[in-house]
Amino acid sequence: MIQNLKFNEKGLVPAIVQDADNGEVLMLGYMNEESLRRTLSSGEVWFYSRSRKELWHKGETSGNRLMVTELWQDCDRDTILAKARPLGPVCHTGNRTCFFEQLTKGDLK
Amino acid sequence: MIQNLKFNEKGLVPAIVQDADNGEVLMLGYMNEESLRRTLSSGEVWFYSRSRKELWHKGETSGNRLMVTELWQDCDRDTILAKARPLGPVCHTGNRTCFFEQLTKGDLK
Repeated sequence: MIQNLKFNEKGLVPAIVQDADNGEVLMLGYMNEESLRRTLSSGEVWFYSRSRKELWHKGETSGNRLMVTELWQDCDRDTILAKARPLGPVCHTGNRTCFFEQLTKGDLK
Repeated sequence: MIQNLKFNEKGLVPAIVQDADNGEVLMLGYMNEESLRRTLSSGEVWFYSRSRKELWHKGETSGNRLMVTELWQDCDRDTILAKARPLGPVCHTGNRTCFFEQLTKGDLK
């Protein structure tokens, strides 16, 4: 099944992380095949860091790991949705979610 | 503000669509600057279709448009989260969400 996923030209798929308990969208990261395998086998979210160009066990340093409850692929098999319980703030800014800046019509200018 | 978004080398950012009422993650699409402008000004979700290489007013044909309630950018300014009320099934398969296929440890084989 994993082989059927459509990784992009860089070998990655975007992976949305949603809080399994309150439904809040927490972040979007990228997974390569190996990080997806590790996520499935360990039950914790692993990404591939595009900046560091290496596997990234989310929360390994901070302790704020993401405990997966469910993993889904979309109809096109080119996006992952991970429902997870975060052990702490997901964002490096200390926010619970990375989506804390709202865009409004005023931003059109 | 829009100019500060980090569009990728193709001029796109991924945009997560979440049901504004029940929190369900519905789909992930891609926006270029113009589709983001149209989304903000019209209050309905516009994407950029990577396959058709054109602006894509989601639901224009099917009628299943996405009425935006809130738009957020993430901490890195390279991902959008659109909270929206869908006027019908979001997925081209007729499913309410594009994420209807679960991945489990069995998919590791």
